[in-house]
Amino acid sequence: MSPFCEDYDFELEHVASVITATGAKRILIQLPEGLQKCSEVVVSELRKHAGSDVDIFVSLNPSYGACLVDEYTADSIGADLIVHFGHLEYPYYKPRKRTIFIPVEYRGADRDKILNVLMSVCADEAGKVCLVTTAQHIKLVNEVVHALAKHCSIEFRDTILGCKPANTWGCGKTVVIAGGKFHCITQALYAINDDVLCLDPYTYNLWNPKKDAERILRVRYWKMYNARDARKWLLIDGMYGQSRPEVLHRITELLRNQDRNYVVAKVLRLDEYVLRNIGIENFDAIVVLSCPRIAIDDLEHIEVPVLTPGEALMLLEGKLEEYRYPW
Amino acid sequence: MSPFCEDYDFELEHVASVITATGAKRILIQLPEGLQKCSEVVVSELRKHAGSDVDIFVSLNPSYGACLVDEYTADSIGADLIVHFGHLEYPYYKPRKRTIFIPVEYRGADRDKILNVLMSVCADEAGKVCLVTTAQHIKLVNEVVHALAKHCSIEFRDTILGCKPANTWGCGKTVVIAGGKFHCITQALYAINDDVLCLDPYTYNLWNPKKDAERILRVRYWKMYNARDARKWLLIDGMYGQSRPEVLHRITELLRNQDRNYVVAKVLRLDEYVLRNIGIENFDAIVVLSCPRIAIDDLEHIEVPVLTPGEALMLLEGKLEEYRYPW
Repeated sequence: MSPFCEDYDFELEHVASVITATGAKRILIQLPEGLQKCSEVVVSELRKHAGSDVDIFVSLNPSYGACLVDEYTADSIGADLIVHFGHLEYPYYKPRKRTIFIPVEYRGADRDKILNVLMSVCADEAGKVCLVTTAQHIKLVNEVVHALAKHCSIEFRDTILGCKPANTWGCGKTVVIAGGKFHCITQALYAINDDVLCLDPYTYNLWNPKKDAERILRVRYWKMYNARDARKWLLIDGMYGQSRPEVLHRITELLRNQDRNYVVAKVLRLDEYVLRNIGIENFDAIVVLSCPRIAIDDLEHIEVPVLTPGEALMLLEGKLEEYRYPW
Repeated sequence: MSPFCEDYDFELEHVASVITATGAKRILIQLPEGLQKCSEVVVSELRKHAGSDVDIFVSLNPSYGACLVDEYTADSIGADLIVHFGHLEYPYYKPRKRTIFIPVEYRGADRDKILNVLMSVCADEAGKVCLVTTAQHIKLVNEVVHALAKHCSIEFRDTILGCKPANTWGCGKTVVIAGGKFHCITQALYAINDDVLCLDPYTYNLWNPKKDAERILRVRYWKMYNARDARKWLLIDGMYGQSRPEVLHRITELLRNQDRNYVVAKVLRLDEYVLRNIGIENFDAIVVLSCPRIAIDDLEHIEVPVLTPGEALMLLEGKLEEYRYPW
């Protein structure tokens, strides 16, 4: 196994035992984009553990979260088990086919360095310090809380599921333990006045997401302002757990009541290429219903305002005072 | 309607009559990537013709050919009719859901200019001149053959369906009437020694694809040469009519017999981004089963050899003398 893949716990013996126990013969595996480079080792290790009569397929369709369990590919190959690596089950979406979720814990973090950083945060905070994290660091966070509990008021609150923030009611300070910026900004956008810090367990960098969140909000309000008189709307819904018929219904109802026109589109993987094909110039505003972060992170530079579902609802309902994230 | 979209015949009154006759209430429409910019006008015109109680969704998933009828999206929205624009039905794949195929004739071509070019080709050719074309120019080609039949030996032979060339047995010369290079190169690769010319009905340019086809073949043989000792293979299959279980079975059997390793992946939309995620460096050779043109047109520059199914079979069966396209 490559050093990169060795740092992650794919729980392959556990997966193999599920395969054996369920008698599954055709398996579809999914890995998040950042871990797909371990596909080759995961498949060959699984073949060793589960036996060579098990057919294993790798889905390379989007696997940005547990909202995207690749049910159609599983159906089309006749899979009897989906193994979805790297995410925890999404509470608002249950795949119809038997699916196991393997969190894939990152084992490479230096516990002492994490402890030192959190000890100093704890020492400075009068209220309760709440830790939230992603699927990759649950064991780490449990260990850290256990070690620090005698020194200060600290708890493991919850996991962030992609665009879904954790409820941090009653916390003095929230520390998000996650790599990169994505998950920490999810938490910061959710409640802009909360006291949130981010700790990257790959670099041990402690940073404050407030400036990023404020910059994003300035851009978001400017997008909404530019969409205020939009006549022709493009509403883009997603697939699987990224299909949101209720939100779509609310938005189309508001648009019809306000005599605005719309086209409803569906797509599994949305990027600028897809928007350029349908012709951005044909629309005055675009709403991405599949995932509220596509508008913010990927399509901010598009010349026509691309809104999240929460922003579209704020604008169409005329309630602009409080930023609504994600819906 | 924009001038661009006006030049194409979407047969919207015919589509509306099918919607009315079948009592369809939820429609999924698909347009080829190059015509998706007409989505907004197609949807609003259809709403006018078919009534406002019909729900219309636009699929923005890949629509590169009639091999990609978006059945899963149709299922997920509960569509009772799919309208697939711009392609003729693919003979090797029937969608399970009711689907109508609308060729979308290009109406902007100048008949006289086309006739003049073909008249001079006919005058120079002793044998029979066979015309082949795509869904967009069938009426045009029929009219041209009708007008020229009294002057020379000419016939409308067949349509090219994306990667599937036309059989031109008995033709002295084949003229492919199609925009761009894609379809004409399909025909030239299929039988490299045939006498093929290409006529672009958008620019009236008559050109010979032999140099393009020969350059492609030099590259293809170099790719096969570099894959000859490959141990770790990545086999990428597609969805819908781009899923090829029989070809996959033949290739995996050959790989197993030769003690080579492989991973099988499935994806709807394949591009370099998808390959970079799974880690090109983990494999010695890649085979794209979904569409034989992805390896040739899109992934030629990848540092690991990316082969078509036909090339993989040539190499693994040791039959390199005759180039096999598409399978």
